[in-house]
Amino acid sequence: MKKMILASTSTIYGSEYLEYLFPVIKNLFSNSKNILFIPYARPNGIPYKSYTNIVKDTFEQLNLSVFGIDDSNNPIENINRCDGIFIGGGNSFLLLDSIQRYNLIKPIIKKVNSGTPLLGTSAGTNICGISIGTTNDMPIVHPSSLKSLNLIPFNINPHYIDLIKGSKHMGESREIRIKEFHKFNNQIVIGLRERSYLQVQENNIILKGPNTARIFKKDYTPHEIEPEFNLNKLLY
Amino acid sequence: MKKMILASTSTIYGSEYLEYLFPVIKNLFSNSKNILFIPYARPNGIPYKSYTNIVKDTFEQLNLSVFGIDDSNNPIENINRCDGIFIGGGNSFLLLDSIQRYNLIKPIIKKVNSGTPLLGTSAGTNICGISIGTTNDMPIVHPSSLKSLNLIPFNINPHYIDLIKGSKHMGESREIRIKEFHKFNNQIVIGLRERSYLQVQENNIILKGPNTARIFKKDYTPHEIEPEFNLNKLLY
Repeated sequence: MKKMILASTSTIYGSEYLEYLFPVIKNLFSNSKNILFIPYARPNGIPYKSYTNIVKDTFEQLNLSVFGIDDSNNPIENINRCDGIFIGGGNSFLLLDSIQRYNLIKPIIKKVNSGTPLLGTSAGTNICGISIGTTNDMPIVHPSSLKSLNLIPFNINPHYIDLIKGSKHMGESREIRIKEFHKFNNQIVIGLRERSYLQVQENNIILKGPNTARIFKKDYTPHEIEPEFNLNKLLY
Repeated sequence: MKKMILASTSTIYGSEYLEYLFPVIKNLFSNSKNILFIPYARPNGIPYKSYTNIVKDTFEQLNLSVFGIDDSNNPIENINRCDGIFIGGGNSFLLLDSIQRYNLIKPIIKKVNSGTPLLGTSAGTNICGISIGTTNDMPIVHPSSLKSLNLIPFNINPHYIDLIKGSKHMGESREIRIKEFHKFNNQIVIGLRERSYLQVQENNIILKGPNTARIFKKDYTPHEIEPEFNLNKLLY
């Protein structure tokens, strides 16, 4: 029974790291004694150890015990022995490249499909989609492929943001970028706004949080879905 | 004698396509009778032909004659027979991927090094740097490598934009993204704001336009350079 929380962002404005998700995290990991943290996305380029320590300190407030995937030299073994997984945000290219290099794609998929709860934030959410082709990040490294974990049958655009009214900036809007994506890719893209997250229970993928999400389907006009909508319906 | 104009954007707010660059374009192509347009970046996913027609119509106002690289089935021959090149903006991944697929990297470099003037805008500017690793675009396709034309010894971040004061959005700022880039790459990155362009004459790379540019050098604090600064100095 697949069980995941996939959040657009780890942190909302004016709040501490993960704070707005505390009740959700507590619930997700209610039976987890040994949560694996995957720090490969390295936000700001910080070292694995520093990133893992931030997560350890934060989860301690919830009485949850975390270890880093790099705590020993055998990441696959670490995946196999954990009973919860958190993939943190940062750079999606770097995250995917690392997961590919260490051959972790299959072990993570297997673990999650067997019922181990997974939390993703930002890049960690992005990577749970079909590909990282709708990331906002810079290609600071070059993964062998953009295909990612495919744990949900969509692509995610995290930190989705509408065109800022009155902006004089001429760089492409998020919507235009996703339109370009659909010239070469077919999967539905979920524009997941900050404060939003997907609650995945097997095939049910429920939009949670206060905001609507924007749905981009190739050759269709984008539209909004309301909180509590089951994204599973988008497939039929 | 290398001769290029590399602009951050094709279009500035409240102005027509390329309009603010008209005098510069006229001067750059003053001896060009047969300007090749490379539409591969396909902004908004528009077809090559439509994109080329926009450029043809625009350049006609300047009495400049343009043909598309796809006007015949031999892009390399088209490069060889032109006497001016314009690489238009759109998606940098798509642009680089197409140039790689058609084996155009070496022919373009050779042509530009022999003195054929080149205009780049946005993705077309990005691709003239060492790599496209500092693009803002989505990876809608997956080029075999991120290495690009290397016609200037820097990476460009086009449409460079400062953090918007008071923004509550938590996605990474451009500056943080470039900082992450420098954890894995060594080249200097030029944050080129809209309305700015680089005027390249052999080894002299002069910042033009009303704005300063932001310089990112690995392990150094970013700093601004003024218009008329010769970026060549950054290398020593």
